[in-house]
Amino acid sequence: MSGEEKILLPPGSTIGIIGGGQLGRMLSTAASRLGFHCHIYDPHISGPAAEVSKFETNGEYDDLKRIKAFVEACDVITYEFENVPALTAAFVETIKPLYPGSFPLKIAQDRYIEKKFIRDEANVPVTEFEKISSLDDLKKAIIKIGLPAVLKTRRFGYDGKGQFIIKSQNEISAAWESMKDSPAILEQFINFKREVSVVAARSQLGETASYPLIENIHKNHILHRSVAPSVPDNKNAQNIALKVLNSLDYVGVIAIEFFEQENGDLLVNEIAPRVHNSGHWTQNAGCVDQFELHIRAITGWPMGDTNPKNKVEMTNLIGDDYRNLNETSKTSKTFIHLYGKKTVKPGRKMGHINRIVN
Amino acid sequence: MSGEEKILLPPGSTIGIIGGGQLGRMLSTAASRLGFHCHIYDPHISGPAAEVSKFETNGEYDDLKRIKAFVEACDVITYEFENVPALTAAFVETIKPLYPGSFPLKIAQDRYIEKKFIRDEANVPVTEFEKISSLDDLKKAIIKIGLPAVLKTRRFGYDGKGQFIIKSQNEISAAWESMKDSPAILEQFINFKREVSVVAARSQLGETASYPLIENIHKNHILHRSVAPSVPDNKNAQNIALKVLNSLDYVGVIAIEFFEQENGDLLVNEIAPRVHNSGHWTQNAGCVDQFELHIRAITGWPMGDTNPKNKVEMTNLIGDDYRNLNETSKTSKTFIHLYGKKTVKPGRKMGHINRIVN
Repeated sequence: MSGEEKILLPPGSTIGIIGGGQLGRMLSTAASRLGFHCHIYDPHISGPAAEVSKFETNGEYDDLKRIKAFVEACDVITYEFENVPALTAAFVETIKPLYPGSFPLKIAQDRYIEKKFIRDEANVPVTEFEKISSLDDLKKAIIKIGLPAVLKTRRFGYDGKGQFIIKSQNEISAAWESMKDSPAILEQFINFKREVSVVAARSQLGETASYPLIENIHKNHILHRSVAPSVPDNKNAQNIALKVLNSLDYVGVIAIEFFEQENGDLLVNEIAPRVHNSGHWTQNAGCVDQFELHIRAITGWPMGDTNPKNKVEMTNLIGDDYRNLNETSKTSKTFIHLYGKKTVKPGRKMGHINRIVN
Repeated sequence: MSGEEKILLPPGSTIGIIGGGQLGRMLSTAASRLGFHCHIYDPHISGPAAEVSKFETNGEYDDLKRIKAFVEACDVITYEFENVPALTAAFVETIKPLYPGSFPLKIAQDRYIEKKFIRDEANVPVTEFEKISSLDDLKKAIIKIGLPAVLKTRRFGYDGKGQFIIKSQNEISAAWESMKDSPAILEQFINFKREVSVVAARSQLGETASYPLIENIHKNHILHRSVAPSVPDNKNAQNIALKVLNSLDYVGVIAIEFFEQENGDLLVNEIAPRVHNSGHWTQNAGCVDQFELHIRAITGWPMGDTNPKNKVEMTNLIGDDYRNLNETSKTSKTFIHLYGKKTVKPGRKMGHINRIVN
């Protein structure tokens, strides 16, 4: 290796992952494949990620004493979910490199701050939105934005939780009450043509990479299926992703979800500062997958090849879906990925299937 | 699932793997992907396999007390190398299912018993061979087989260790002395056109599957490169593999190495009752890989799809090779697999690279 081209973090180094679910599990497996050791931090013992990782520390996400011991045992730290307390992230950064850092985390944790940053700092189109702290705010915002509109909690919403679609004036009070005094945001309801996403990355060295456009189909507000590369393409998605990555001075994989309108215009719906369910198809696409891409980005490795060789359709196995794997396991070009979760619950993501389409 | 088609061992079950090297590591990762937990038995703590597995027991391979505790914690047992003591394997079988069983292990542990079984029981052509227990045996055998010929220890030989190529009469004594009184076998020296192998499997239910022909290139008696599907094909290889699988009443993945002669005839060189270095290419071939195939076979799952979508070239990273990964990590359609070994030694397999050729 020449001086300029050296791999920053060598195999044998330890990567710390905050959060021990399926995303941590698949990150850990990708890191092991590159010769890294993984150390999982999670409140629960021996979960999906820890069981495939060399080291494990159990503690609450705000237990800075446990966090400190964990961080000191690692060479670089990352996280698999965006609800790591901001203070914990800031604390980690005082000891070791944290990628992505506490700043993108703070942005992604609050829908209002997120939308404002994307619109005003990254200069990227988003749905019209207003900050809502009271019923009065909501009434004023509806006059501006119109109906239908979507009222969402600013924090801790996922898979459609903490959302209320307001279709008529007489639902306004009920909508506000459903927020239970949480700070909220009102967004214009978009009649989209497709829901699409882009998974992209930026490395420690500023190198960027992205996968082709992904089309997503939701069921009951949970991602059901992703297909990529999506036809027709929408080249603007990657440009937007690069703007967001650079404006955040980001390191790691990011996912950006869009509403694509009838005229092809893209509006950012939300960003996830991590590997993303809509990027699982990359595992069987014949290129570097999103988990390895994230590990490469945070360790300073070259980004490698993100051009898929195949078109892939990913289907989530939700709840009992995963009990019917016999036919799937016989089907050609179909790959099963289970997460090792102990108990099946309705709505719980138990695994996914990647099918090579061509 | 219908009654006839039920998956025998469900996700959440525990697979025990005797041996904790890179083959155990990749078996464990494949098993985790199907939702199984893995338990590694190895004398050394936290090796390549254990670090990606949920459970680990450390003990010598003949420590039946430790072996018993390990076996009782698992639902099905397998092994990643053929030098598990025969008595240990037989002991395991008294408690839990062991796949492949102690019989194929016994066959594969002794080159003479192996060749005799393949020739006389599986009715498959092998190189001419003679059992050698003394210098006198060796002299008589050379009269029968002719020179050049290869003298090999019957047991514990791998990567060319314990072999002596006898080219002329005056090397006979030196050859015998190099065996250090170990029981040996003399084999005809084959002027082969290609060294090829087949990786195949047979499930608990008797279902069989195999991958296309693999061409292997050795360097210093260590596998350097494998390419598959190999052109030209040699359909007879799969037929031979199925004969061997059925004659052994085998469960799991087997590898069969052949010498292909100028006229296309195949002679079995040796069998490995396990996943095999020459099958690593399957990890990036767009079909079920050999590690998952083995896990499916020993758990009673359907064998699935072993038709590669791509041609793949696998190159081993031996010793210092693995330090020069920077260019490789930038190359498209090229996949890095490292084993997490702590120290680099000359001749040690540190990882491998799979390159999609088309």
